[in-house]
Amino acid sequence: MSNTSSPAAVAGLSVNRLARPLVERLLADADALAVQLRRDDTGVHIVDAGIEARGSVAAGLQVGEICMGGLGQVNLRSGSSAEGWPTWLDVRSSQPVLACLGSQYAGWSLSASKEETGGKKFFSLGSGPARALAVKEELFAELGYRDRAEFGVLVLEVDRPPPKIVIDKLLRDCDLPAHALTLILTPTTSLAGTTQVVSRVLEVALHKAHALGFALADIVDGAATAPLPSPSSDGVEAMGRTNDAILYGGRVHLTVRGDDDAARALARALPSRNSRDYGRSFADIFKEVAYDFYKIDGALFAPAEVWVSSLSSGRTWHGGASDMALLRRLWLQEASDDGPQAQVRP
Amino acid sequence: MSNTSSPAAVAGLSVNRLARPLVERLLADADALAVQLRRDDTGVHIVDAGIEARGSVAAGLQVGEICMGGLGQVNLRSGSSAEGWPTWLDVRSSQPVLACLGSQYAGWSLSASKEETGGKKFFSLGSGPARALAVKEELFAELGYRDRAEFGVLVLEVDRPPPKIVIDKLLRDCDLPAHALTLILTPTTSLAGTTQVVSRVLEVALHKAHALGFALADIVDGAATAPLPSPSSDGVEAMGRTNDAILYGGRVHLTVRGDDDAARALARALPSRNSRDYGRSFADIFKEVAYDFYKIDGALFAPAEVWVSSLSSGRTWHGGASDMALLRRLWLQEASDDGPQAQVRP
Amino acid sequence: MSNTSSPAAVAGLSVNRLARPLVERLLADADALAVQLRRDDTGVHIVDAGIEARGSVAAGLQVGEICMGGLGQVNLRSGSSAEGWPTWLDVRSSQPVLACLGSQYAGWSLSASKEETGGKKFFSLGSGPARALAVKEELFAELGYRDRAEFGVLVLEVDRPPPKIVIDKLLRDCDLPAHALTLILTPTTSLAGTTQVVSRVLEVALHKAHALGFALADIVDGAATAPLPSPSSDGVEAMGRTNDAILYGGRVHLTVRGDDDAARALARALPSRNSRDYGRSFADIFKEVAYDFYKIDGALFAPAEVWVSSLSSGRTWHGGASDMALLRRLWLQEASDDGPQAQVRP
Repeated sequence: MSNTSSPAAVAGLSVNRLARPLVERLLADADALAVQLRRDDTGVHIVDAGIEARGSVAAGLQVGEICMGGLGQVNLRSGSSAEGWPTWLDVRSSQPVLACLGSQYAGWSLSASKEETGGKKFFSLGSGPARALAVKEELFAELGYRDRAEFGVLVLEVDRPPPKIVIDKLLRDCDLPAHALTLILTPTTSLAGTTQVVSRVLEVALHKAHALGFALADIVDGAATAPLPSPSSDGVEAMGRTNDAILYGGRVHLTVRGDDDAARALARALPSRNSRDYGRSFADIFKEVAYDFYKIDGALFAPAEVWVSSLSSGRTWHGGASDMALLRRLWLQEASDDGPQAQVRP
Repeated sequence: MSNTSSPAAVAGLSVNRLARPLVERLLADADALAVQLRRDDTGVHIVDAGIEARGSVAAGLQVGEICMGGLGQVNLRSGSSAEGWPTWLDVRSSQPVLACLGSQYAGWSLSASKEETGGKKFFSLGSGPARALAVKEELFAELGYRDRAEFGVLVLEVDRPPPKIVIDKLLRDCDLPAHALTLILTPTTSLAGTTQVVSRVLEVALHKAHALGFALADIVDGAATAPLPSPSSDGVEAMGRTNDAILYGGRVHLTVRGDDDAARALARALPSRNSRDYGRSFADIFKEVAYDFYKIDGALFAPAEVWVSSLSSGRTWHGGASDMALLRRLWLQEASDDGPQAQVRP
Repeated sequence: MSNTSSPAAVAGLSVNRLARPLVERLLADADALAVQLRRDDTGVHIVDAGIEARGSVAAGLQVGEICMGGLGQVNLRSGSSAEGWPTWLDVRSSQPVLACLGSQYAGWSLSASKEETGGKKFFSLGSGPARALAVKEELFAELGYRDRAEFGVLVLEVDRPPPKIVIDKLLRDCDLPAHALTLILTPTTSLAGTTQVVSRVLEVALHKAHALGFALADIVDGAATAPLPSPSSDGVEAMGRTNDAILYGGRVHLTVRGDDDAARALARALPSRNSRDYGRSFADIFKEVAYDFYKIDGALFAPAEVWVSSLSSGRTWHGGASDMALLRRLWLQEASDDGPQAQVRP
């Protein structure tokens, strides 16, 4: 790879091929990870990571790395007492633009009407490597990236398998035979679902940087962390928690090229607190706008705290702050403050 | 694996087979890990991880993962300044009941009298995957788990190899030929021994949850951390430190199914501070009861601090607190507060 | 390996062979790691990890482990809010003397005059496994260690490839054919360079312990951490930051054999604050001595904070303290404190 300033420099990398060993490990370890495998009628491989199957945090960590096209690491670590929450995800990539925007970003809109499905309507935002085979999003032109691999893997944050009409579209758009496509299904209400969504903490920063107009080719390294909440069996609550984890607990360190002013401006503009909606739980905000995503201020979708290091000068700018007190109010209760002692034994 | 609520759902997993690659890596890396391999007279593979061999922290981390039947991760991490201790173990499992109780728990009582050994009497509590081949403990009926593998591995916290009569019993109970059994010997006074015992921090929480009557099938994920003390050359001190690491420094996050009241009650009842013996070093307590384990309050054997997340509601309850000040008093001294400056050079 | 007290006990380990799989992975993942491979005219394998190639933090982590002869782990982790810096390296080894002094230490002086190169003069301190093939340094006699492997790998912190005369000397001294030698080039101003230098935090402690006369054979385990700064495009600044990361942010835990007094004395004498030069940025100190390393107090080259655990007694001594406030002054600025808001968009 040459020292070019264009993201097209990564064109030699295949996110689907790089993710392949991780997909194979997910399939081989299915029982240990509490996921279920099956072939659907078309022959596509379906990994149920939280619908009929229980799924697991361990599965979610692997799905997170698959989503990043094999170009990122997702690790669980214990928080210190001072951090105020016990379990955190660390995410890093030395190809952050390709891993996060070229692969992990949930940007491929997949839908089918009642008429088309012959039942309930279907909607999902596909994420992961197979997006780069289909290149149906404008983003790929900006990235100058297209993957050409003989197999693909896509992650869908759904609570039921996609209908045949959507699967047919996926195969057509990815130009793959059925046996060469793997779909991983991770409802947000599941352990794997919550884990893989929180592992998007770095991607959320990249997406906001892009929305702010920062030159993507200048972002060369990324490391991030976020607290891992418990999933909720309520869909809106579950989604709210994963967003809150990033908006109020996410902390991201980007390393960039280019001039110092742009780096400093990025550190100032990136954090979620620049949004007018900052400060309340995402579930509350979402309910207030009657569940219409597009009415939420786009500036909110960002990590709480950022550091931007400039390779030119070596200086690092800091912006934002995490608010663990808010997350603790939303997520946590003292066992002893909660009425008379109940029975452990059921 | 189906989404059943019984731990028997894990019956498809073989802890001995899953541990096998880790055992092979331990043998292949023996020199780097400072452990010694040999075949005993019967042909059983013996790994000396701290008797004649020096052993190492790295060996202890691998033994910890072997003990969890390949279904858990044990990692070393550096503590932050605020944590008050430099070196910590992070332990996690997405099959915590099987990994910790079905495999890692030191529950298999192995003994031989002076008459039987022709020398000193022998006693050890066997831990690790081979327990699930022998299923000599009542616990396995509750777990509904039995492993059937063509090889087995057992960990013994001893300072000398088991006598032939014990090895014969192991082979008989596990129904294995001698060459198919590996015994890993880790004295508590060794680096590997201390490391693998502290890696039981999650198991200690599972065991206490079981003692409290919490439904094991409802525990679906676990993550934990504990400070790693220095071993002591004194056996009681060394054992005391590993226990203190968990009782006063262990922090565990469990994710459970079932109703919220049971989750909250578990968070309240689990921590070690519920014990009347809480607050003094384990070595002191042990001496006070004249080295009779069974006189120590069972409630003491628990981590210091817990979080219990309920998948039903998504709520998390917190109970207990770690006491790093106590551990620092027991384990640590300022080099500068300790008399005149000695010579580094011996 | 027997339980001997001499470092020669490690003679069975080949740091070049143990590093080999890591080198192969570096080559296989070259595109993802943003490094470039080529054969030079002699046939030697050259890995450019930051000259023409961009390089990456991920490459630096692997180079760090290669430098430790496959006997150490280098991991990135996110710092807690209380730690005051977002990105840290954790380093550990259960063969610290061999990994750090027998391999990682930059102790092999390689130079060529203008006359010899036919151009600019060349100077570099070679580090990594191939040092132990050449054994040109007195240190190896003390270690009682010499590697004999059929291939070798050396790391050079340079901004251009070594001249032919130096390469010829390397091949001669290592007794290797050209195709069997791999050179990894990591300028300090690059991401990989900064990362691999900070991964020397444990080695710096070992080197200081050696300088203080502590018996190397008594050091049996080591774990360390240090904040990872941004590289600077200015060579002196870049080098200064990597040193500051260790001198003011490095924290090391050593486990030693031998008597308690020596352990305590080591904990007292080891930290960087014992140096008269302590307290200012390394770049400033270096400029003050007119860029003459040998005028800097050798006692400064040490981690900020240490714990020394004695296996004899199990006691741990603490010495020194990290100074993150100093590092934050040197490295960090608030994005909002820095004049009017600039444009993110370039």
